[in-house]
Amino acid sequence: MAQRLILRLPLKSATTTNAFRVPGRVAGHPNRAPLLFSRPFATSVGTGDYLSRKHSDQKDFVHGEPSGPKILTGTIPGPKTKAGLQNLDSLQDTRAATMMTDLDKSIGNYVVDLDGNTYLDLFCQIASLPLGYNSKALIDAAKSSEMIQMLVNRPALGVQPHSTWAKTLEDSFMSVAPKGLTQVFTAMCGSCSNETAYKAAFMYYQRNKRGFNSEISNEDLSTCMKNSGPGSPDLAIMSFEGGFHGRLFGSLSTTHTKALHKVDIPAFSNWVASPFPNLKYPLDKHQAENDKEEARCLAIAEDKMRPKSSGTPIVALIVEPIQSEGGDNHASPKFFQELRNLTKKHGVLMIVDEVQTGVGPTGDFWAHEAWNLTTPPDIVTFSKKFQAAGWYHRPELRTNAPYRNFNTWMGDPIRALQAKTILHEIKKNDLVGNAKETGAYLKKELSTIENKYPGTISAVRGRGTFMAFDLPTPETRDKFVTKLRALGVNTGGCGPHSIRLRPMLVFQKKHADIFLDAVEKVCKSA
Amino acid sequence: MAQRLILRLPLKSATTTNAFRVPGRVAGHPNRAPLLFSRPFATSVGTGDYLSRKHSDQKDFVHGEPSGPKILTGTIPGPKTKAGLQNLDSLQDTRAATMMTDLDKSIGNYVVDLDGNTYLDLFCQIASLPLGYNSKALIDAAKSSEMIQMLVNRPALGVQPHSTWAKTLEDSFMSVAPKGLTQVFTAMCGSCSNETAYKAAFMYYQRNKRGFNSEISNEDLSTCMKNSGPGSPDLAIMSFEGGFHGRLFGSLSTTHTKALHKVDIPAFSNWVASPFPNLKYPLDKHQAENDKEEARCLAIAEDKMRPKSSGTPIVALIVEPIQSEGGDNHASPKFFQELRNLTKKHGVLMIVDEVQTGVGPTGDFWAHEAWNLTTPPDIVTFSKKFQAAGWYHRPELRTNAPYRNFNTWMGDPIRALQAKTILHEIKKNDLVGNAKETGAYLKKELSTIENKYPGTISAVRGRGTFMAFDLPTPETRDKFVTKLRALGVNTGGCGPHSIRLRPMLVFQKKHADIFLDAVEKVCKSA
Repeated sequence: MAQRLILRLPLKSATTTNAFRVPGRVAGHPNRAPLLFSRPFATSVGTGDYLSRKHSDQKDFVHGEPSGPKILTGTIPGPKTKAGLQNLDSLQDTRAATMMTDLDKSIGNYVVDLDGNTYLDLFCQIASLPLGYNSKALIDAAKSSEMIQMLVNRPALGVQPHSTWAKTLEDSFMSVAPKGLTQVFTAMCGSCSNETAYKAAFMYYQRNKRGFNSEISNEDLSTCMKNSGPGSPDLAIMSFEGGFHGRLFGSLSTTHTKALHKVDIPAFSNWVASPFPNLKYPLDKHQAENDKEEARCLAIAEDKMRPKSSGTPIVALIVEPIQSEGGDNHASPKFFQELRNLTKKHGVLMIVDEVQTGVGPTGDFWAHEAWNLTTPPDIVTFSKKFQAAGWYHRPELRTNAPYRNFNTWMGDPIRALQAKTILHEIKKNDLVGNAKETGAYLKKELSTIENKYPGTISAVRGRGTFMAFDLPTPETRDKFVTKLRALGVNTGGCGPHSIRLRPMLVFQKKHADIFLDAVEKVCKSA
Repeated sequence: MAQRLILRLPLKSATTTNAFRVPGRVAGHPNRAPLLFSRPFATSVGTGDYLSRKHSDQKDFVHGEPSGPKILTGTIPGPKTKAGLQNLDSLQDTRAATMMTDLDKSIGNYVVDLDGNTYLDLFCQIASLPLGYNSKALIDAAKSSEMIQMLVNRPALGVQPHSTWAKTLEDSFMSVAPKGLTQVFTAMCGSCSNETAYKAAFMYYQRNKRGFNSEISNEDLSTCMKNSGPGSPDLAIMSFEGGFHGRLFGSLSTTHTKALHKVDIPAFSNWVASPFPNLKYPLDKHQAENDKEEARCLAIAEDKMRPKSSGTPIVALIVEPIQSEGGDNHASPKFFQELRNLTKKHGVLMIVDEVQTGVGPTGDFWAHEAWNLTTPPDIVTFSKKFQAAGWYHRPELRTNAPYRNFNTWMGDPIRALQAKTILHEIKKNDLVGNAKETGAYLKKELSTIENKYPGTISAVRGRGTFMAFDLPTPETRDKFVTKLRALGVNTGGCGPHSIRLRPMLVFQKKHADIFLDAVEKVCKSA
């Protein structure tokens, strides 16, 4: 769950004569430097090793997509987008906006902006679009009487659940429940999911401490009303440096990505963070030193979670399978297995945050499946590509009384209905398999570019299409993203100097070719 | 924003021979005690002072409603509802559920359960349904191409807003923006709205402290990454005892209703609460002592918010116009005006939480309009009846840099489109005026019942249809709610021993008559 793009003022335009005139020569037109904005990308750039491969034998998941990006305006954002954002800015802050979309014209992997520029979208509404723009399956579902009913009669699921809710849960979330987790708590967004999961962890810890079926003491009940101990206990969730788990007060105390996300906001000062492995890529070429780095981090993590005679007890540990906002940082299955062993050893609950990694992009439906844990996590949280949010858990993590982990809506059935449709499409077209296969191709070819332009891009890494690579500095990264966008390819930054790829599940090799061609162009121009 | 109903296990049934056989006599059938479940309510009870009035001259807002409630099963919940909840309980905790709804059959003010029982609904999915079940206007909106587009292409509004978003904001939230507040931050639920508003308040405070256009120091940036001061500052939001502002970690630290909402969850121990006036009702009959009580509370509030040489600075104060979950506690416009003066005097921001009171039920669109403040609040938060959530604010409360108060979706355009439809219906049918007029009638008649059955119900109070009354104890309150439900009227509890009425905006005098008749029946049977 990560949200920050590159820091860039959208209303400051790049011009063709600056960043976007590719200094190299166009293949087949040796004396002409291409103006990338005046013509369709495929014809104006149409060169590369990648575009020639076509991959025309692949089954199309989306019908009616354009053949490639198309940039029409001399500056990005173009004049209409600029005006549109300026107008919106009178009501809401738009400084983070990089684009204003024309959703009528967007389709599949392609997003169109207000100026008619068409981009191949590898960022996809911050990694949250699963099936592409204007998915036919989702449109059909939107028109169904069930969807209309749930849209106009939004239930308070905790007090007045509707007759079909259990069936919807079974057809959606429960049909892909991680092994060992038979319950689902439905929520509204990634931050709320993580925070309600933390609440469950705290209540479980206190319940065990006072005896599983014991009454809550009057002292606990009276002191909590004043935000004081022992009723409001000094307990902690542990997280990792570089981890991102949301932006509300509890989740933000477990987020450790960028200072601007955290500064000025009161935090739980005893909620500790432990270093996450800082590995070298490609992983298989640096096994010995990576093993050492993981062992170092595990030792520190164990030290922090070990019960102490004084200090704040660690109730749960939250971890992303791949740190996303923090810079696409990976760790080995062995690391996670040993981390799980440590949580078991020290009575700490393990929460796996699959808000960004879940629902297929890594080539597994849940990224943590690849760890082959001997004991499943206690809680797995989700949002984004499922459109719906929430967390899976063991039955023991229910509270001892109703209303304790509760809110008005308790999730949203329309998003659960969409999750059901998304799952149906994923299964029908083996979109998880597609992410694995397309990702393998993408990684191989990106590695080739990495080797071809040493010192330009580095540390190509990823699972499935959930990939990233580094640039030397934050500035060169920001420039790379801008240049890709000018070539009609939308990506996002993560960490201090990485670019992350978060394409949809319908991203295929033919789309990868266009992306790879653009990357090579930018590398050449660097 | 309040969510707790009466504590009651839904699967434990009441039986006709117990709670629901009304001991009094049926008017016109002097020798027969009515069996309330076997026949339509209107014919089986059909007696009272109220039902005879009919109010047939009123324009109907909803077509196709039944003429009254209808209870078919001998126990509530009935066997199908029991089985349905039991089935759902294998996946999710259902202990708070009082009903399982059949939304196909529900219409307008009437909700139908799985056993075919029809209830007049005065609780309305925890005060969140604005136009009634299966509203034709909302169904038409759900079928619109704009709604379908926004449903299937859910945008990350902060980075890729769509072309029609500004227009949607203008047609929805901004068309009813509270005086003086020109900006709207869109969110997903009441808790998130309040928490992002708190974040804005903290950032604004720190910005002013360091100089409005000054840079953030490196010390602040580095320490916040460890959840330590000065970057993670010791600052507080002040709230009121009995206030409810949400259930996530920041909002829960400002919630002071029931201990079970708060116990076992770490809290910000320096976020103080001040007593809210404990007034006597009816307000106009106890003016002198109520004035004194308000003055007492204002003095304590001022003492807490006054800047001190040490201790945690109070950055903002959050207050509900009517404490809802806390027991429908009122205060006078003068109290709020003086509170506003105090916040201005001591440099504390004023956040008005209109999550439950907003969007018409009190007879004003925003409940705080009735205060006639000389200076508007700094922030007004909303959710529930708007379906969409968020907060209005002054432009100065924007952060100094993008991404600081941010998340993936930043609200939801489909809910904003619904808000637009809701507003259209409110204006077309003057539903705020209807709430005022129906509420005045309801209050007058409830007061008559209160006087007729002294010691049974008391403290009838409210604005518009946002009403409540007290029972002597929590137990008698819970029993009263259960008996009303058995008579086909769905209400909810609040505070220790109150019943709150949260009907829809399409609740009319004819519905009030049915409710009043049921209340009188239960009073008679007490």
